[in-house]
Amino acid sequence: MRYAVIGTGGVGGYFGGRLALAGRDVCFLLHSDYEFVLQHGLRVDSCKGDFMIKPVQAYRDAADLPVCDVVLVALKTVNNHLLPHLLQKVAGTETLVVLIQNGIGMEEDLQKAMPNLQIAAGTAFICSAKTGPGHISHMDYGTLTIADYSCRDLSKIEALTNDLKDAGVETYEAEYALARWRKAVWNMPFNGMTVVMDASTDALLGNPSTRALIREQMLEVIGAAAACGVRGLDESFADKQIAATDRMTPYKPSMKLDYDCGRPMEIDYLYTRPLALAAAAGYPMPHLQMLEEQLRFLAAAK
Amino acid sequence: MRYAVIGTGGVGGYFGGRLALAGRDVCFLLHSDYEFVLQHGLRVDSCKGDFMIKPVQAYRDAADLPVCDVVLVALKTVNNHLLPHLLQKVAGTETLVVLIQNGIGMEEDLQKAMPNLQIAAGTAFICSAKTGPGHISHMDYGTLTIADYSCRDLSKIEALTNDLKDAGVETYEAEYALARWRKAVWNMPFNGMTVVMDASTDALLGNPSTRALIREQMLEVIGAAAACGVRGLDESFADKQIAATDRMTPYKPSMKLDYDCGRPMEIDYLYTRPLALAAAAGYPMPHLQMLEEQLRFLAAAK
Repeated sequence: MRYAVIGTGGVGGYFGGRLALAGRDVCFLLHSDYEFVLQHGLRVDSCKGDFMIKPVQAYRDAADLPVCDVVLVALKTVNNHLLPHLLQKVAGTETLVVLIQNGIGMEEDLQKAMPNLQIAAGTAFICSAKTGPGHISHMDYGTLTIADYSCRDLSKIEALTNDLKDAGVETYEAEYALARWRKAVWNMPFNGMTVVMDASTDALLGNPSTRALIREQMLEVIGAAAACGVRGLDESFADKQIAATDRMTPYKPSMKLDYDCGRPMEIDYLYTRPLALAAAAGYPMPHLQMLEEQLRFLAAAK
Repeated sequence: MRYAVIGTGGVGGYFGGRLALAGRDVCFLLHSDYEFVLQHGLRVDSCKGDFMIKPVQAYRDAADLPVCDVVLVALKTVNNHLLPHLLQKVAGTETLVVLIQNGIGMEEDLQKAMPNLQIAAGTAFICSAKTGPGHISHMDYGTLTIADYSCRDLSKIEALTNDLKDAGVETYEAEYALARWRKAVWNMPFNGMTVVMDASTDALLGNPSTRALIREQMLEVIGAAAACGVRGLDESFADKQIAATDRMTPYKPSMKLDYDCGRPMEIDYLYTRPLALAAAAGYPMPHLQMLEEQLRFLAAAK
C-alpha cells in the first residue's frame, strides 16, 4: 500500500507520520514547509511518544506525486476547491481518497467534480496542531473513524484500517451519514461558540447559560440528523458529548485557532451546508443558524 | 405640578432638565453627583440647544423628598429592587410614577410591591448619556411616549404630556402593552447584539448576515407580542425599524455602554422577562433566548 498525505498539518502530519513510522510508504505533499522538511524531516511530538520521520518522501508539486492506493486529505475545507487539481495525478481508478475533514457535504461536492473517484470520509478525534515548520504537536486522543462513501473495493478500507491499527492508531469503521452528523453534534456548537464568545470549551460549559445553550444546539443537530434520515443519535448522545468535554483539557477547537490566527474559518461545510440540508428536510436549526450569521459577521469584520 | 426625578442620568437628567428649564418645579434625587450639582448646577449639552439648571433642587436622600405629583423614574432596571424604598416618601396617593425604562415587566413588579401606586410606562427614543458629574450630553432625538398602566386619574397623564410639550419635548400617548413591546422590537436585537458582537448598529446592519439576523430577531419579538395579545405590530414594523436605524448615526445602545463601562446589564427586564412571557404564551424566541444566554455568559465572565 502506497499512501499520500495532502495537507500535512496537525491531522495529516500525525496520521501520515504514524503510518510512515510503522514502515509504510507515505508521500507527503508539502507547500511552505517543503524545503524545511526535506532537510530536517517531520517531527511529531506526541503524547503517545515523540518520533521523527527522516528522510521524508516530500513533494512540492501535486503533479509529481505517484499514483497511490490511499490518499489522506487533511486540508482545511476552505481549500477544497483545489482538490480536483491536487488529486489529478495521485488518484488513479483504484485509489481511495479519504477526506479527514470537519463538516458535512465535502464528499458530495468532490464526487460531483470527480465522478469516478472512490471516496471515504474520515472523522478524527484528536487534539493536534502544527506548531512550527515540519513540527506537529499531538496533545491528546488520536482516534480515526473511516466511513465508506463511494468505494468500489471495500477491501481497501479494510487494508487501511489494518495499517492504521498496526501504526498504533485506534481506528473504527462507521456508516457514512452517521459518522458525519455524529461529529457535527460536537463540532457545530463548540467551534462557533468558542469563536463568538471568545472562550474555551471549559468556560462555556462552566457557565450555566452557555452550558444549556450548547446542549440545545447539540439537540438541534441531533434533530436535524434524524430529519435527514440518520438513525442512531438521540438526546443521550448530547449528554455524553458534554460529559466527555467536561473531562477534556480546556480546549480551543480548530475554528477558534483559525480565527485567532487570522485564517479563514470553515463556515461553509461546518454550518452553511448542514443548515441547508436540515432546512431542505423541513427542520430549522435556529440557534445554529444564528451562530452561522454571527460567524459570518466576524469573518467579514476580520 | 411638582416633579421628582429619580435617576438623574442621560434620560432623567434630560427630561427633568427640560421641565425645570420650562419653569416647572423639579426635585432631583442625586447620589454620587449630589455635592457637584448643588454647587455647579445641572449642565445639559443638547443638540436642541445647550442649557444649565442652577440652582438645582437637589436631594441626597429619598426620605427628604416632598410628595410630588409626578415622579419620573429613570434608574437602570438593575436597581428596581430599590424602588419601594426610594418612592416611600415622594409617592403619595395622588402621585403618578412614570417608569422611563427599557424592558418589559417593571410595572408589574413594582405594582406587586406597592399595590396602591399609580404607575405609567415611559418609553424614550433618545440618544443621551451622562458624560460627567452633573453633565448630560444629549446627542439626538428626544421623544417620550407615555402609557397608562394603573393610573386612577388620567388627567394627570394629560397634564404631564402638556408640561412636556411646553418644555419642548415631543410627547405621545400609547397603549401600555403596545408601547412596551414596540420598544422591545428594537431593544432586544440591538442591545444584546452590539454587546455580543462588539459592534455598533451600523456595523451589524452593514453585514448581510447580521442584518438578516437582526430582522429575524425583530420578527420574533413581533410574533411574541402577538402571542401575548398585543395588536398593532406586523412584519412591516421590523423593516421600518431597520430603515430608521440605517438613517441613525452609528449608535451604541445603553446595554453596550453599560457593558463597556463594566456596569451591570439590564438582562432581566430586557430579555428574561419577555422570554418568559412569550414562552408562557407558547411562543418560543430561539434567537433571543440564545442572545440572552450569550449575554449571561459575558455578564458572569466580566
